[in-house]
Amino acid sequence: MGIVSVPLGKRSYKIKLGRGLLSRLGKECAPLCLGSTCVVISDRNVAPHYARGACQALTHAGFATKLLTIPAGEKAKSLKVVQSCYNQLAAYRLERSSFIVALGGGVVGDLAGFVAATYLRGLPFVQVPTTLLAQVDSSVGGKVGVNLPAGKNLVGAFHQPRLVLCDLDTLSTLPAREYRAGLAEAIKYGIIDDRSLFQRLERDLPKLLERSPKVAEEIIRRCCEIKAEVVGQDETEGGRRAILNFGHTIGHGLEAISRYGKFLHGEAIAVGQVAAARLSARVLGLPPRDVQRICTLFQRAGLPTQVKLTARQRRQLLSAMQLDKKVTGGQLKFVLASRIGRAELPRAVPLEWVEEALEPSDWAEATITLSRHVRG
Amino acid sequence: MGIVSVPLGKRSYKIKLGRGLLSRLGKECAPLCLGSTCVVISDRNVAPHYARGACQALTHAGFATKLLTIPAGEKAKSLKVVQSCYNQLAAYRLERSSFIVALGGGVVGDLAGFVAATYLRGLPFVQVPTTLLAQVDSSVGGKVGVNLPAGKNLVGAFHQPRLVLCDLDTLSTLPAREYRAGLAEAIKYGIIDDRSLFQRLERDLPKLLERSPKVAEEIIRRCCEIKAEVVGQDETEGGRRAILNFGHTIGHGLEAISRYGKFLHGEAIAVGQVAAARLSARVLGLPPRDVQRICTLFQRAGLPTQVKLTARQRRQLLSAMQLDKKVTGGQLKFVLASRIGRAELPRAVPLEWVEEALEPSDWAEATITLSRHVRG
Repeated sequence: MGIVSVPLGKRSYKIKLGRGLLSRLGKECAPLCLGSTCVVISDRNVAPHYARGACQALTHAGFATKLLTIPAGEKAKSLKVVQSCYNQLAAYRLERSSFIVALGGGVVGDLAGFVAATYLRGLPFVQVPTTLLAQVDSSVGGKVGVNLPAGKNLVGAFHQPRLVLCDLDTLSTLPAREYRAGLAEAIKYGIIDDRSLFQRLERDLPKLLERSPKVAEEIIRRCCEIKAEVVGQDETEGGRRAILNFGHTIGHGLEAISRYGKFLHGEAIAVGQVAAARLSARVLGLPPRDVQRICTLFQRAGLPTQVKLTARQRRQLLSAMQLDKKVTGGQLKFVLASRIGRAELPRAVPLEWVEEALEPSDWAEATITLSRHVRG
Repeated sequence: MGIVSVPLGKRSYKIKLGRGLLSRLGKECAPLCLGSTCVVISDRNVAPHYARGACQALTHAGFATKLLTIPAGEKAKSLKVVQSCYNQLAAYRLERSSFIVALGGGVVGDLAGFVAATYLRGLPFVQVPTTLLAQVDSSVGGKVGVNLPAGKNLVGAFHQPRLVLCDLDTLSTLPAREYRAGLAEAIKYGIIDDRSLFQRLERDLPKLLERSPKVAEEIIRRCCEIKAEVVGQDETEGGRRAILNFGHTIGHGLEAISRYGKFLHGEAIAVGQVAAARLSARVLGLPPRDVQRICTLFQRAGLPTQVKLTARQRRQLLSAMQLDKKVTGGQLKFVLASRIGRAELPRAVPLEWVEEALEPSDWAEATITLSRHVRG
C-alpha cells in the first residue's frame, strides 16, 4: 500500500493507494474517531459494483452503515440532488457523531463532500474514489461543491476529507471513456508541475491505456504527491493552488453551456488545456513544439482537443467563462505554462486571443461539436 | 459607539453598536479589505425601511452595490430561497473580490451568511442586524444556515462575519411582536451566564418594552459580550458554546412541527426555556422560586411560556427533537441551569421528564396552542 500525506496541520490526512483496499475501508476508518454511524453516498453506476463491499467492510468494523444512492453523471451534481441527500440524512436521523463516505467518481466526491460540509454544520468525510479522475485529482484537496445552471462549481466549500482510500481494483469496471477522461487530469499534472511525469505519460501511455496496475499506481501516486504538495502550501487557493486550474476556465465553460450533459469533465478540460497551451505559446512563449506535444498526447489518450462552435455558441462560452472564480474586475484570467512542467499564476489575457486559441486548427484532429447540446 | 470584540485569531471581528450607524456602513466596511463589489441581502419587510440607506452608504464609500430582496419570515430560511440567491448572484456575475451584507433579522443573517459561506466556496460577509433578536444573539458567532422541513438549522456552516454593525435606530420600526421575541434571547443570556443581567431585565423590563435606547443599548451590549466570550472560547461548539442552546431543543422542535409558520424563533424558545427551567429543577435542583421567576419574566415580556399540544402533536414534537444536533446515540440532551446565571453542558434526560416539563401548568398563563398549524 502506498501512502501520500496531505500536510494541513490539524486537517492533515493520508491518501492510501493500493489493490484490494476497499475491503479494508472499515479498518482504515476505525482509528480516525469519525463517529459510530456512517452513510455511504454512491451513484447508480458505482453502487452495483462496490457499495455492498464498502458497506460490509464498514459494518464489520462496527459502524452502523447506511447507503444513499444518487443518479450518475455531472447533471446530478446539483442542488436538487443535494437537497434530496439532506432529506434522506434527516430521515436516517443522522447525528453529529456520524460521517459520510463518498464512494464513486468526481461527481460523487464533490457532492457528498458538500453534503458533509453543510449537514449539521459539518460532518467528517472519507473519499473512496473509484474513477481514475477522482483518484488522480478530485478526491484530494477538499474542494467540494455543486454546479449551478450558470456555471460549474459555483457553490461549494473547502472541506478536507479525513482519509482518501484509492482502491486500484475499482478501475477495472470503469468504462473506457471514463478512464480516458481521467488521463486528462494526469496529463495536467505533467504540464503544470512535472516534465518527467509528462515524458513518462508519453512513453507509458499504451500500458496505461491497457490499465497496467503497476503503471497506473505509479502515475496516480505521483499526481497525488503533486496535489498534496500544492494544497499543503495553499489550501484555499490564495495563490499557487490556482495552477491546478490549468485548462479549467474553458473546460468549465464548455461543461456549463452544454448543460453538463455532453462532456465528461476530463474531456472538457482536455479541450481547455490544448487552448490554454496555445494561449501559453502566445503569452509566455511556450515553444510550438510543446504545444504540439501536448495536443498529441491528449489525442493519443483518445481525448478531444478542440471544439467546433457556432458563432452563437462561442458567445455563450465567453459569457459562461465570465463566471469563472478567477475573474476579477470582469477580466478573464488564465493559468498558462511557460514550458511543459511549469505553470504560472493566473493572468489576464485579451479576449480575442482566447477566441483565437479556441479556433479549430487543421493539425489537431480530435474535434468535437457541441451543436445539439448547447442551450437554445 | 460601543465596541465588543469577538476574539477568534485570524477570524476576529468587532461588533459595533450605536445609533445612526447604518449611514456609516460603507466607511466601516472600507478598511476591512472585503472587495470592491457587494450585494446587500435583505427581506421584504426590512428593505423598504433601510435598504436604500445601506446601499447609499456603501456606494458613497466606493463599493459597487446591488440589492437582493428575499421573502420575510422563517419559512424563507429554506434551500429554495438559497438557490434563488445563488442564481441571482450568478446573474450579477459576482466575483471573489466581492462581499455580502446581511441587512435584517435572524432569518436574513442566517440565510445570507450561508449563501456567503458557500457561493464561490466562500465570500466575506457583514452582519447588519435590524431586529432585537439578531442584535442580541444571531448576528454574532458565525452560525449560518437554513432549515429543512424535518428540522431547524439542519443545513449550515460556521462562517464568521467580518463585522457586525448594530444600528439601534433600526429597532424603531420593529413590530412589537418581533421586539418581544428578541427579549427571549436576552433573557436566555441572563439565565445561562449572568444573574445580574437577569435581575436587571426583571427591573428594567418596562423601560425596555418602551424601547428606551439607553437601556436597550446596554442590554444588547451585555448579551454581545457574553456571546463573544463564549464563542471566542469554543467557536464550533465542541463544548461550552452548547449552553447558548438553552431552551432551543424544544424551541426548534416547535418551530419544525408548526412548519416554521406559527412561532417567531423567540416565542418558540420562550416556551422551550420555561420547559428547560422545569427540567433544571428536577435534574439540577434549580429552586422552584427561580423557575417561577423565569416563567414570570417571559410572561411580563409578553411571550408564551407553555404550549398546549394534542397527544399526536406531542409525539411529533418528541420525534422532531430527535433531529436536534445535540442528540447522541439517539438520546436527547438538554442544556440545563443549576441556578439563574449558570448553565451546565448538555446532559441526557429521560423522555418522560421532558414530556412532563412540557405539560401546561395552571400558574403559567401564557399558553399558546398549535392546533391548526401542525402538520396534518
